[in-house]
Amino acid sequence: MVDVAHTRALFDLPAGVTYLNGNSLGPLPKAAAARAKTVLQNEWGTELIRGWNTAGWMALPDKVGDRIARLIGAPEGSVSVGDTLSLKVTQALSAAVKMTPNRRVILSDNGNFPTDLYMAQGLAETLGQGHKIETPNPEQVLDRISEDVAVLMLTEVDYRTGRRHNLPKLAEKARAHGVPIVWDLAHSAGAFPVDLAGADFAVGCTYKFLNGGPGAPAFIYVRPGLADTITPLFSGWLGHAAPFAFETSYRPDAGTGRMRIGTPPVLALSVLDTALDIWDGVDLSALEARSHELSERFIARVEAAQSSLSLASPRKAKKRGAQVSFRFKHGYPAMQALIAQGVIGDFRAPDIMRFGITPLYQTEDDIDRAADTLAEIVRTRAWDKPEFHARKAVT
Amino acid sequence: MVDVAHTRALFDLPAGVTYLNGNSLGPLPKAAAARAKTVLQNEWGTELIRGWNTAGWMALPDKVGDRIARLIGAPEGSVSVGDTLSLKVTQALSAAVKMTPNRRVILSDNGNFPTDLYMAQGLAETLGQGHKIETPNPEQVLDRISEDVAVLMLTEVDYRTGRRHNLPKLAEKARAHGVPIVWDLAHSAGAFPVDLAGADFAVGCTYKFLNGGPGAPAFIYVRPGLADTITPLFSGWLGHAAPFAFETSYRPDAGTGRMRIGTPPVLALSVLDTALDIWDGVDLSALEARSHELSERFIARVEAAQSSLSLASPRKAKKRGAQVSFRFKHGYPAMQALIAQGVIGDFRAPDIMRFGITPLYQTEDDIDRAADTLAEIVRTRAWDKPEFHARKAVT
Repeated sequence: MVDVAHTRALFDLPAGVTYLNGNSLGPLPKAAAARAKTVLQNEWGTELIRGWNTAGWMALPDKVGDRIARLIGAPEGSVSVGDTLSLKVTQALSAAVKMTPNRRVILSDNGNFPTDLYMAQGLAETLGQGHKIETPNPEQVLDRISEDVAVLMLTEVDYRTGRRHNLPKLAEKARAHGVPIVWDLAHSAGAFPVDLAGADFAVGCTYKFLNGGPGAPAFIYVRPGLADTITPLFSGWLGHAAPFAFETSYRPDAGTGRMRIGTPPVLALSVLDTALDIWDGVDLSALEARSHELSERFIARVEAAQSSLSLASPRKAKKRGAQVSFRFKHGYPAMQALIAQGVIGDFRAPDIMRFGITPLYQTEDDIDRAADTLAEIVRTRAWDKPEFHARKAVT
Repeated sequence: MVDVAHTRALFDLPAGVTYLNGNSLGPLPKAAAARAKTVLQNEWGTELIRGWNTAGWMALPDKVGDRIARLIGAPEGSVSVGDTLSLKVTQALSAAVKMTPNRRVILSDNGNFPTDLYMAQGLAETLGQGHKIETPNPEQVLDRISEDVAVLMLTEVDYRTGRRHNLPKLAEKARAHGVPIVWDLAHSAGAFPVDLAGADFAVGCTYKFLNGGPGAPAFIYVRPGLADTITPLFSGWLGHAAPFAFETSYRPDAGTGRMRIGTPPVLALSVLDTALDIWDGVDLSALEARSHELSERFIARVEAAQSSLSLASPRKAKKRGAQVSFRFKHGYPAMQALIAQGVIGDFRAPDIMRFGITPLYQTEDDIDRAADTLAEIVRTRAWDKPEFHARKAVT
C-alpha cells in the first residue's frame, strides 16, 4: 500500500490548493530548500572547486541515475541523468539509427509529444540520409512494424488523453523485426511499474511524477550490453573514459557512462536527488493500484454530476497512465475557472481538460473536491459570469 | 575602474581561503541562496505549474541571454542560455557545416578544450560525410584558413596556458574565405571585453568568470540575420515558434529563439540571473586593465622569489586571458601543498599550475599571499615533508 499520510507530509502543498497537475510539474518536496541551501552554502560556497570531489558532484549523474533505475525497473548502472528530455531523445535516436544503417523509417505515432517528433525531424534533416518520420495513429503502430523500420520511438502515455501503449507487445514485434526501440517514459516514470523488456533505450523527465522541479534534468536508460557498442553523437568530455586526462581524441567511457555529456548541473541534480528520497520504500505496483482507485473515483464522480464532459481517456484503468482527461467544448475557460477556485489541472487544445493522478500526495478528499468543483463550474457555466472575467483581468 | 570593495562584498568567500580558481568555478554570490529559496518556496512551492507564467520561468533563457549579451558585446536578442557548453558547441557546429556543404575540414587547434574537439568528432562521425578535424598548433591556424575549411572553431583562451588568440585577425581571414566561425568564449566571458566582429556563433559557459555555480547553463550567440536562416539540428519544442500549439511539425522560432531546445532549467537559470547582478555597472575594459595589473604583480612576485617555475602564459598581458600559468616539474604535489595552505589554484597535466585572475573579488593582498605561499612551498619543497603527506592522507 501507499502510506499517503506519510508521503503527503513530505511535500509543501500550498493551503487551499487541490493539485491535479503533477503529471506536468510535481509539487515541492519539503526537503528541497534545505538541500539547495546546503549545496550553495556548504558545498559551493565553502568547498569551491574542490566540491567536485569533496561534495560528490561528479558522481551525481550516475548516483541519481541508479535511484531512477529502481523506479523504472532498470538494473544499476544503466541510467544516466542530465540535460533535457529533448536532447536525450536525440541521443537515443542517433545511436539507434546507427544500428540499422540500411533502413530509413523512424516510426512513431501522432500521439507522441511534439518535441520527440521535432528532434527526430532535426536529426533526420541533419543526417541527410533520407530518413522519414512516420506517425500513424497509435493503434496502427503495431501493424506498421516491419523490416524497413530503422527505429521505433514511442511515448508510452499520451500527454493529452493518458492512453497507454502496450509496450511489451510492441517490443516483441519490434525485436522480431530487428527494430531498435526508444521508449519515452515522461509520463510513466513514477506513475506505475515500467516494463523495459526489449527496450534498447528509454528516456524520460524528472519534473513530473518524480517531483524534481521545473526544468529538472532528464534521464536515459541504455540496455546493458548495448551501451558498450555505441558511438555517441554527443561525445562530451564527461562521457570520456578519462575526462581529466584531457586527451585530444574521444574515448568513450564504459557502458552508460558514455551518455554523460557536459558538466553536470549540480544544483538541479542535488534537488532531484532529495526529491527521490520520497520514493524510498514506495512500491510502484501499490502506487499504480492506488492510482486506479483514485482515477476511477474521479471519473465516476465527474460523470455522475454532469453530462457535458466526455471521457477522453481510456475507460479501462490498465489502458491509462496516471491521468484522466475529459473533452469539453468550453474546456479552456472552464479550466481557468477551476484554477481560480484552487483546483489545478490543465488544458490542451483543442478541448482537453487534463488531471494528473498522484497518490503520493492525493487523497480521496482532493479527488472529491476537484470533481465537485468541476461539476459545479460546468453546471453554473462559471466562465460566463462577470466575476470570473473580473478575476481573470487582475491575474 | 573596478570597485573591488563593493563587488568583493557581494561574494561569500570562505575565511582563510585565497581563491585563484575563478577561471574554473567562480565563487558563491551572497544573493544566490536567497534567490534559490525564493524560486523553490515562493515560486515552485506556491505557484506550482502556474510559475511558468506568473514567475517568468519561460522567459529566463532569453532574459538571462540578454544580460550575458551585454558582457560579450552582443546585441539584445542574440544570446540564448541553456544546456551545457558541449551541446552548444554541437548546436553551433551543426549549423555552421550546413552553411558550407561542399567543404570537409573542421579547423580548430590543439589548444582547444577537449570537449569541443570530442563533440566535433561525434558530429563528424554521425554525419558520415567525411568531415575531418584538423588541429594544428594555435599559431598555425591563421595560415591554414582556406577555401576548403567548412568551419573554424576555436577557443579564444587556452585553458592550460591562458594564451589568447587574435580573434579579429582570424575572423577577417575566415570571412574572406567564406569560412563560418564558432568562437568558444568559456574563458573570455566575464574576463575581458569580447570582440565578436565576424563571428557567426559564439558559445560559452557561465560557471567560470560569470559565477553561475557548478554546472550552470551555457550560452550561445548567433549573428543577427544569420539565426533566421538556420535549420537547427536540435529542433526542440521550446525553439518552436509556438511551443504550446503542440503542432506535429517543427517550425522554428524567429532568430536566436530557435536555439532554445528543451524545458529551461529554472533553478539554475535563476541563480545565474542573480549572479549576473554583480556585473551591473562593471566596465569590462576597466576589469581587463585591473586583471593585467594583478597578473603582472603575480608574475613579478613569483619570479622574484624563486627560479624553478617557468611562465607558461604569454608574457605580454594583451596576449593572455585572465589567467597565469607556470610550468613546474613538481607542479602536481606543489599545487596540493598550496591548496592545503588555503591558496586555491589548480593543476593541468603534465606540469601546469594554473591561477585565475578575477578582479571582481581579488585584491593585491590575495595576489601577494598566493605568490608568497607558492614561493615558500617551492623553496622548502613542502611536498617532500612528512606533514604534507600526513595531511594528504586525511583529506
